[in-house]
Amino acid sequence: MTLTRNAADRTKRVVSSSGRERPVSETRIAVRTSELDSFGHVNHAIYLNYFEHARFEALKQAGFPWGTLEERGWAIFVVRIEVDYVAETHREDELLIRTWADSFRRTSMVLEQEMLRDDDSGEVVARARVTAVWIGSDRRPMRVPPDVQRGLSEGTT
Amino acid sequence: MTLTRNAADRTKRVVSSSGRERPVSETRIAVRTSELDSFGHVNHAIYLNYFEHARFEALKQAGFPWGTLEERGWAIFVVRIEVDYVAETHREDELLIRTWADSFRRTSMVLEQEMLRDDDSGEVVARARVTAVWIGSDRRPMRVPPDVQRGLSEGTT
Amino acid sequence: MTLTRNAADRTKRVVSSSGRERPVSETRIAVRTSELDSFGHVNHAIYLNYFEHARFEALKQAGFPWGTLEERGWAIFVVRIEVDYVAETHREDELLIRTWADSFRRTSMVLEQEMLRDDDSGEVVARARVTAVWIGSDRRPMRVPPDVQRGLSEGTT
Amino acid sequence: MTLTRNAADRTKRVVSSSGRERPVSETRIAVRTSELDSFGHVNHAIYLNYFEHARFEALKQAGFPWGTLEERGWAIFVVRIEVDYVAETHREDELLIRTWADSFRRTSMVLEQEMLRDDDSGEVVARARVTAVWIGSDRRPMRVPPDVQRGLSEGTT
Repeated sequence: MTLTRNAADRTKRVVSSSGRERPVSETRIAVRTSELDSFGHVNHAIYLNYFEHARFEALKQAGFPWGTLEERGWAIFVVRIEVDYVAETHREDELLIRTWADSFRRTSMVLEQEMLRDDDSGEVVARARVTAVWIGSDRRPMRVPPDVQRGLSEGTT
Repeated sequence: MTLTRNAADRTKRVVSSSGRERPVSETRIAVRTSELDSFGHVNHAIYLNYFEHARFEALKQAGFPWGTLEERGWAIFVVRIEVDYVAETHREDELLIRTWADSFRRTSMVLEQEMLRDDDSGEVVARARVTAVWIGSDRRPMRVPPDVQRGLSEGTT
Repeated sequence: MTLTRNAADRTKRVVSSSGRERPVSETRIAVRTSELDSFGHVNHAIYLNYFEHARFEALKQAGFPWGTLEERGWAIFVVRIEVDYVAETHREDELLIRTWADSFRRTSMVLEQEMLRDDDSGEVVARARVTAVWIGSDRRPMRVPPDVQRGLSEGTT
Repeated sequence: MTLTRNAADRTKRVVSSSGRERPVSETRIAVRTSELDSFGHVNHAIYLNYFEHARFEALKQAGFPWGTLEERGWAIFVVRIEVDYVAETHREDELLIRTWADSFRRTSMVLEQEMLRDDDSGEVVARARVTAVWIGSDRRPMRVPPDVQRGLSEGTT
């Protein structure tokens, strides 16, 4: 993955696992005390909350805010998740999550995510690859909205 | 409760329930998607995570960071909590929590907290009153550290 | 609060804070590893999850299952909670929560709850008093359903 | 994966991904109301709490209870997780998690897990594959305790 900047549209872009150049959404997360487990670090399940939050930020940035999902009675179900936990995180850590699309099928999409320390080190603390299915108001898989696919693939202008 | 500013030390101050003027610590919280429950709003239990996080911020501001607690093997146990839920909060809400001490006993302290929308409305969404006991490394109640009591009572300079 | 058994209907009953005899619903909870915080005990916010779960069990036992709430688009919003934390709980603890109604107003109800160790000690570990408002599908307060009030007040037969 | 029963020791056994026959630990989980998200089903991050809880049950069954971990100041850090979400789960669902070891390296182990409905359907709702590293009291990777490896590989007698 190589992070570049497109001078024209000022959006950060990344080359995804499958070799496509994609816009990157960035979300900042501040660790909360209650997210530590009895080993004194952020519990691995909590990372999924952080990544989920960042995915909805990416959708918003791609022109599809949470409110639209609610209004239409749609949902997005995670069907597969792979997470590599690279470093521990603790209370008072500030994190930055980068989210981008890798690929799309008719009713699902694969998003890639990277969690970094939001400091000079920029240390990667975790990486995720998430497959999610779009669900219509009838509770059945629906086509990925073309606008969303376009926004996640090319960025919004 | 009346919020004032002390021109001399620039710290915001508040008059607590028991009539004492106290320094106020402020913490910002951004609601996360995973904190919504099946009623589509932030679950009432999550407010306790927010308030807890803000209390540790207040301790830090009073000169007692989380790391010190860990190093010494001390803990702070909540023994009573009262929360009034005034308004719903939702995804994308930005919240501001104000925390101050009300009173102290030998091994415990009562903190008061107020959660507001962090926007022009400044609408109060919840209020809490929390009694917490200081626990030593022997897992028994210990005296509230005098420095902490001073920091929470008068502010730090 | 005195716990009695009504020989006739085999339902456990309790005398609530306001002096009324009420049926008691019982829910068992097994603490999970992830519910411990960095102090090595169940975090105080998690108790609210346990109590919430037990309240919905009480509603179900009063003849109003969760599914009915969902079908009708109704919700129950907590507007005030008071919890006394009496003893710590840890991994592998088995808990028993007793839930009963104290009183009703037009659109709200006050429930009382007690959490005990589910062992021979029967030690009380926490007590809660929760005020909740019934919310209709128009997202406004609605009358407490008479059936629910009857079920929580007298038990079902 | 084929589930068999060893008549001799009455322990259920399974053939893991890497072709080894392993003892299986079983853990029952009752979904709690607070674990539903705004899509009305159990949030995908919560499955990690369930799986984690079941892994510590498996360790206990292999002769290594949680208390021992705490006493020695050891920890077990998840370094990779893969989860396939096969079916939704909801409030009032009773789930059964089966956990077994797949393989071991010097300081880490790979556990496999399967979550089923604990009813006649026995429907699989999720599968997980988790790599975890053993961490000593000096906060550095330590050798997987031989007793644990033996208990997870052969069962206890």
